[in-house]
Parts: sequence; structure tokens; C-alpha cells
Amino acid sequence: MIGRLNHVAIAVPDLEASIAQYRDTLGAVVGAPQDEPDHGVTVVFIELPNTKIELLYPLGDSSPITGFLEKNPAGGIHHICYEVDDILQARDHLLAQGARVLGTGEPKIGAHGKPVLFLHPKDFNGCLVELEQV
Amino acid sequence: MIGRLNHVAIAVPDLEASIAQYRDTLGAVVGAPQDEPDHGVTVVFIELPNTKIELLYPLGDSSPITGFLEKNPAGGIHHICYEVDDILQARDHLLAQGARVLGTGEPKIGAHGKPVLFLHPKDFNGCLVELEQV
Repeated sequence: MIGRLNHVAIAVPDLEASIAQYRDTLGAVVGAPQDEPDHGVTVVFIELPNTKIELLYPLGDSSPITGFLEKNPAGGIHHICYEVDDILQARDHLLAQGARVLGTGEPKIGAHGKPVLFLHPKDFNGCLVELEQV
Repeated sequence: MIGRLNHVAIAVPDLEASIAQYRDTLGAVVGAPQDEPDHGVTVVFIELPNTKIELLYPLGDSSPITGFLEKNPAGGIHHICYEVDDILQARDHLLAQGARVLGTGEPKIGAHGKPVLFLHPKDFNGCLVELEQV
């Protein structure tokens, strides 16, 4: 069912420092920051040859990243995102297997403009898992 | 400098349950467990089309995963691994940029039989970063 690893998302406490680090220290291709007010994040994509790293920084007063950074002041891996062909079929299969889908269970349009769902980290080895229909 | 994302490593408290979950719930291609006594881990590779997930489970009395699971009983992402062409050149560049390399600074032979180094998580947004020469 799951396909490619679309991205690994890393919450960062200092976006400019993280951009400089990935660009200069790690020598990666780093994109421009993109504000995503609907998701409460500023996002920076790091393009690797086979996948992406997504740096997440809080935007606005009710960012989902703020609480994560309070618990993890140095930052940390926030979620991993797997691609699926059909998100409703994937959701129904997961629910039938006993996995928990966060929120209402209805896909939302994610930061990439595509339907996404998040799965409960307690069901997946402490990892927040995003599924994105591609 | 960094190339492909070689793998995302996830420490898991119940290897059989995690294997079943990735195989049956997430529908992924899951390999057979491999004991790596030199590294204190049993490893299971999940083959995605573009990269791998590496499940890590403690092996032996002095496994580096035991302490991680004590702090994170549900499991969690343990490290991410980037490929580099020349690990000594990468190390020297990182040190010159002020990043800290764990251990002696000399590459060790990792679980895949290739030279690896680990970078200090405090320098990389709370993420333990492995570099592997490919």
C-alpha cells in the first residue's frame, strides 16, 4: 500500500540557522521559505536526490509546531510522510486493521495541495505518520 | 555534499508487532530480521521504492537502542542516514564548519558494511544524523 517516502519533516527552532546548516554545512539544495498560513507553518524544502526533508517552523499563534518545540527545544523529527495512490482506500484498510486516523478521518488538503491524513503515533512506534495521495 | 537519504531508522519495542504492522497494515515490503551483534541491534529493512526504513531492536546486553527505548517506550525515530561520496572529506568539511562528530571522529564500519559516522544531534535540530559512504 505505502509507496515512496515523500518527506521527513523536521521541526526547527531557528529557521535561518537550519537553512544555513543544510546549505553550507551539509551542502544540500535548500529552497526558499514558504509560508503556509492554513497549516500554521513556514516550510523549507531540502531537495535530496531521492526524497525531501521538510523543515517546519511555527507560523502564527496556533501553530501545531509550537507545542512540539516546547517539548523538544532543540527541534526534532516531527513526522514521516508516505505516498499512497488512493487515500480513502488506504484509510479504510488502516481502520479495518485497527489503526487510528487523527481528526475526523476525512482527508484534508495538505501543505503540498494534496489530500493527506495523519495516523496516531502510538500505533506506529511513536512516529507520527502522514499519508499523502499523489 | 549529502546525497540520497539512505534510510530512516526507527527504534521499536516489539519487533514482531512492527514487522506485522509494516507488512499487513501499511502493505510494505518487509525483509527478514538480521542480527548485527557488533552493533547491538537486530535490523529489519522495509524497502520503499525510493529509500528504506530500518527497524532497530535491541540485541544483547549493551545495545545502543536500550536506553533510547527506556526514554521512548513506544519507540521513535532514532536517526536519519544521508549518503556521502567521501566520508573523510565530509567529516573534515563538517568539523571545519563547527559541527561535532560523535566518538573518535574516525569512521566505523556500519550495519551495512560501509564506513559511517554519526553527527551530534544538538548540532542538527535534535536529529541524530548518520553519514554513510556509498
